[in-house]
Amino acid sequence: MSIITYDIIQHVIIFGKERGFKMKSYRKELWFKADRRRKLINITHQVEKCLQESGIKEGLLLCNAMHITASVFINDDESGLHMDYENWLEELAPEKPYERYNHNTYEDNADAHLKRTIMGREVVVAITNGRLDFGPWEQIFYGEFDGMRNKRVLVKIIGE
Amino acid sequence: MSIITYDIIQHVIIFGKERGFKMKSYRKELWFKADRRRKLINITHQVEKCLQESGIKEGLLLCNAMHITASVFINDDESGLHMDYENWLEELAPEKPYERYNHNTYEDNADAHLKRTIMGREVVVAITNGRLDFGPWEQIFYGEFDGMRNKRVLVKIIGE
Amino acid sequence: MSIITYDIIQHVIIFGKERGFKMKSYRKELWFKADRRRKLINITHQVEKCLQESGIKEGLLLCNAMHITASVFINDDESGLHMDYENWLEELAPEKPYERYNHNTYEDNADAHLKRTIMGREVVVAITNGRLDFGPWEQIFYGEFDGMRNKRVLVKIIGE
Repeated sequence: MSIITYDIIQHVIIFGKERGFKMKSYRKELWFKADRRRKLINITHQVEKCLQESGIKEGLLLCNAMHITASVFINDDESGLHMDYENWLEELAPEKPYERYNHNTYEDNADAHLKRTIMGREVVVAITNGRLDFGPWEQIFYGEFDGMRNKRVLVKIIGE
Repeated sequence: MSIITYDIIQHVIIFGKERGFKMKSYRKELWFKADRRRKLINITHQVEKCLQESGIKEGLLLCNAMHITASVFINDDESGLHMDYENWLEELAPEKPYERYNHNTYEDNADAHLKRTIMGREVVVAITNGRLDFGPWEQIFYGEFDGMRNKRVLVKIIGE
Repeated sequence: MSIITYDIIQHVIIFGKERGFKMKSYRKELWFKADRRRKLINITHQVEKCLQESGIKEGLLLCNAMHITASVFINDDESGLHMDYENWLEELAPEKPYERYNHNTYEDNADAHLKRTIMGREVVVAITNGRLDFGPWEQIFYGEFDGMRNKRVLVKIIGE
């Protein structure tokens, strides 16, 4: 039985000293209801709160839209740029005329599917020393392209 | 001797209660041969089968095209929308005239590289309670833009 | 002392046979200073060196631009295609006239934010048997769209 005791101590040493660690996972949904059809919402602070709640110090964080007419992306929190995104996405995938799209038989949101495709569904962020491992201007946004109803973002973190 | 018992109980508590766990990894290639140049193929069921096979309950799943003229993306399984994707991608990055592109010296698939860039190479999906942690309409697609030959998708899962 | 040895061997057996393993994490920044505004730089070899340095054999690798006017993406290392990317991105999000964009009040790089949005911020790559688990032509690129200054890419690896 003393063999067992020693074994466990060894085990702890191995996990601590050799940079191996036990994994944890964390999951949370963030809910949003945009007050107009299209809106960019800075969710960096909410994602940081998830990370704190998780207690995870090293790992990867996935943040994705759970709806296919919305996006999670990383860019600058600058209002001029956000106007540029609006204009540019309307150029690349205009909302109207609705008849432009085959998808718009019972729906009117084909453009939102295409806009979200440009902007991306998800981001994966490195977690280092318990923080989002970001460059100087990186901010996480929820990009809503078919709003005015409750929609969700998933935050999933795995690591130590 | 009571120390020994205590050690073992501690150990179980750490792995069970505090959500630490041992990691597993899983890898599989899915092969496709699209019967035309461009095609969107719903692969959600095949990816779910990989997940079941892996036995992983908590973690992250990466699914990526292994070819640079193909995409893996998440959106709606609706035929009108798929026609819209075809028309829209042809607007943004037309297949012809082939001479339009510098890449098309020995090849004719420059447009496929660009279309795949719009649609994305990969998706990362959260695994929760042994399932793809999806919103209501999320489906995984293989987007082929230079088909009629055997091409591969990689599924890699890490977690507990 | 022979007891101790036996315990350690046990430990190895458990981690090897049951496919559970200890996690490691690795982080490195790669720095670039492009000699012109826009440039595509093949960084596959540098990312492979990070992987070797990490000693990680199974897991996931995240490689992302730490700046919001740059991209990390996977595609072909073919000079004709790279010219096509340049022309195509200039079509979709032209640099000039600078007044075209609301972001360009104190800045002139709105187009770089949009170009990077098309190309993507990050890639996630499977690590299998200590190697980047790539298809035949996959290469990792740093896409610079507002160069001539020092900018960073993050490599984060988690796994065994």
